[in-house]
Amino acid sequence: SHSIDLAVIPGDGIGQEVVAQGLKVLAAVLPQDVKLETKEYDFGAKRYHATGETLTDADLDALKQHDAILLGAIGDPSVPSGVLERGFLLKLRFAFDHHVNLRPSKLLPGVATPLAGQPEIDFVVVREGTEGPYTGNGGTIRKGTEHEVATEVSVNTAYGVERVVRDAFARAQARPRKKLTLVHKNNVLTFAGHLWTNIFNKVAAEFPEVTTDYLHVDAATIFLVTDPARFDVIVTDNLFGDIITDLAAAVSGGIGVAASGNINPSGAFPSMFEPVHGSAPDIAGQGKADPTATVLSVALLLRHLGHESEAARIEAAVAADLTERGDAVRSTDEIGDALAARVAS
Amino acid sequence: SHSIDLAVIPGDGIGQEVVAQGLKVLAAVLPQDVKLETKEYDFGAKRYHATGETLTDADLDALKQHDAILLGAIGDPSVPSGVLERGFLLKLRFAFDHHVNLRPSKLLPGVATPLAGQPEIDFVVVREGTEGPYTGNGGTIRKGTEHEVATEVSVNTAYGVERVVRDAFARAQARPRKKLTLVHKNNVLTFAGHLWTNIFNKVAAEFPEVTTDYLHVDAATIFLVTDPARFDVIVTDNLFGDIITDLAAAVSGGIGVAASGNINPSGAFPSMFEPVHGSAPDIAGQGKADPTATVLSVALLLRHLGHESEAARIEAAVAADLTERGDAVRSTDEIGDALAARVAS
Ligand SMILES: CC(C)[C@H](C(=O)O)[C@@H](O)C(=O)O
Ligand SMILES: CC(C)[C@H](C(=O)O)[C@@H](O)C(=O)O
Repeated sequence: SHSIDLAVIPGDGIGQEVVAQGLKVLAAVLPQDVKLETKEYDFGAKRYHATGETLTDADLDALKQHDAILLGAIGDPSVPSGVLERGFLLKLRFAFDHHVNLRPSKLLPGVATPLAGQPEIDFVVVREGTEGPYTGNGGTIRKGTEHEVATEVSVNTAYGVERVVRDAFARAQARPRKKLTLVHKNNVLTFAGHLWTNIFNKVAAEFPEVTTDYLHVDAATIFLVTDPARFDVIVTDNLFGDIITDLAAAVSGGIGVAASGNINPSGAFPSMFEPVHGSAPDIAGQGKADPTATVLSVALLLRHLGHESEAARIEAAVAADLTERGDAVRSTDEIGDALAARVAS
Repeated sequence: SHSIDLAVIPGDGIGQEVVAQGLKVLAAVLPQDVKLETKEYDFGAKRYHATGETLTDADLDALKQHDAILLGAIGDPSVPSGVLERGFLLKLRFAFDHHVNLRPSKLLPGVATPLAGQPEIDFVVVREGTEGPYTGNGGTIRKGTEHEVATEVSVNTAYGVERVVRDAFARAQARPRKKLTLVHKNNVLTFAGHLWTNIFNKVAAEFPEVTTDYLHVDAATIFLVTDPARFDVIVTDNLFGDIITDLAAAVSGGIGVAASGNINPSGAFPSMFEPVHGSAPDIAGQGKADPTATVLSVALLLRHLGHESEAARIEAAVAADLTERGDAVRSTDEIGDALAARVAS
């Protein structure tokens, strides 16, 4: 398409700063004949304090009109834990049926990792985004008393599991190594575990070229630090995906460079792209935040909208920048400028 | 007490081999005036195939008579996933109300870790053992159809959370750094999260000397690889504890040296001690398994029964052995002999 209509949600903390750099690089990479329109939305802690609103039906209607959404970060210590997460972030993922939560991990040469021996890391996690323990199903009785009982219900459907498993197989099929690992805990969570395992095995029969294996989530965390090279594509549930992608980010360059897409492959609703990191209020407004994760999220956004060559150019620019970065301390702005210059040339 | 009456469950795979070494070291460390009695039980895959039984009421009655239980490992690929886990391991933890699942992590000088820079690691995870998503609560409807729905219910009670949080505070209080970190996901699992957080804060008021903090489980996995020295005592729910203790074991010397105790502090039922690793059928019977985790589990067992100086002697022997181990490949038996010789002298 020759125009991109983007909803931009800077959000809280460092969100503002990193999104500005993402947009800078986006403007620099797009060919002149692609018209870029952006509309900024004021979601986050400030609006919540002013109005009590996190995300209204009218907001959802407005967001729905855009081709895609770029998000910085949402969350602030002044808001009770859970209010913005459930009331904005998860509400949006559920409302727009973002069932493919895509989180690539790639350790580039020369990039710092806490692991010894600079292992090869190049995999992508396909995290289910609309089910599991994230549905908000559950409740509390006798709250605040010594007899309180609180439950959380993980909801898993054949429909929801099959579509994300299928998406993951297609992604594995399209990669050189063609390997897909299912991560779950099917020896303990036997109801959900059997559903995931059976569907995984059923869909596997349709992808004979894809090598498959299975790991319990606890074992997966071990391999992520002892042998991350064994992973190509991972498919997993919402909560396990949340946990292992933070660990994956930590070992492959840090959350400063970890991008993600909350994707609705059907296109019925716009997909949303965001760095994996949070709002980091402790360093907000100081020009210290690394905008690389947001810039890489812009690349995922472009790829999702069919602009593959621009996405690849951003990724190449980031790779070159990371490899040549060295120990120089650069501001948020300087990193954004450097990346914009690379993609433009 | 001047006698120890132990139930011994070698179990499957390498369980037999490592338990033999654990008993060898136990016999070597005990003073002559402590009478050791052991009774072996045949739980595991073999018995399941022969009789269909995993753990009967009569078995529980028999086990209940002992002072403590030493377990090797349970699990075999010939048994469908979940059958022995739910039917034996978890059934026992629940039947004997093993609500304190204790998992220490200590990286000794010279011991291999996947982390760069040999960081300082010396913390203990207190994992809740009888609640959370491990209760088996949940179910499946329309099984095997495209309309299948499978649920898993995490059950959390004030009673269950408070007793384990209290245990963790007492352990933190007794350590030099006196620091306790609550790990949960209270921004998403808000029902259970609020229960855990409120009880944690309430009990904290009774332990003014203990410094507290809170981490989401995803962030905790990051710190476990980037800054494990920040942890002293961690308290967390059953599933999060399962995940982070495997990661903790991986960074602090590997699951070959990770011990655990399934403890009922009231003493109403015997506590059970086991290595964190599984039955590793691929290397079973070859004398390749490292018995260190089992030997360290024997130390936890002795401490639980009040034999502190013997426990400390085993831990010192393991520390010396690990530090001096070098690259020599030793058999299961040789490592057991070396440790037995050290504790005896
Ligand atoms: C902020 C929180 C709701 C979110 C999640 O748990 O999904 C975050 O951790 C993430 O991974 O995007
Ligand atoms: C085997 C399994 C049931 C068990 C668990 O999940 O608790 C194991 O992973 C452990 O950590 O002891």
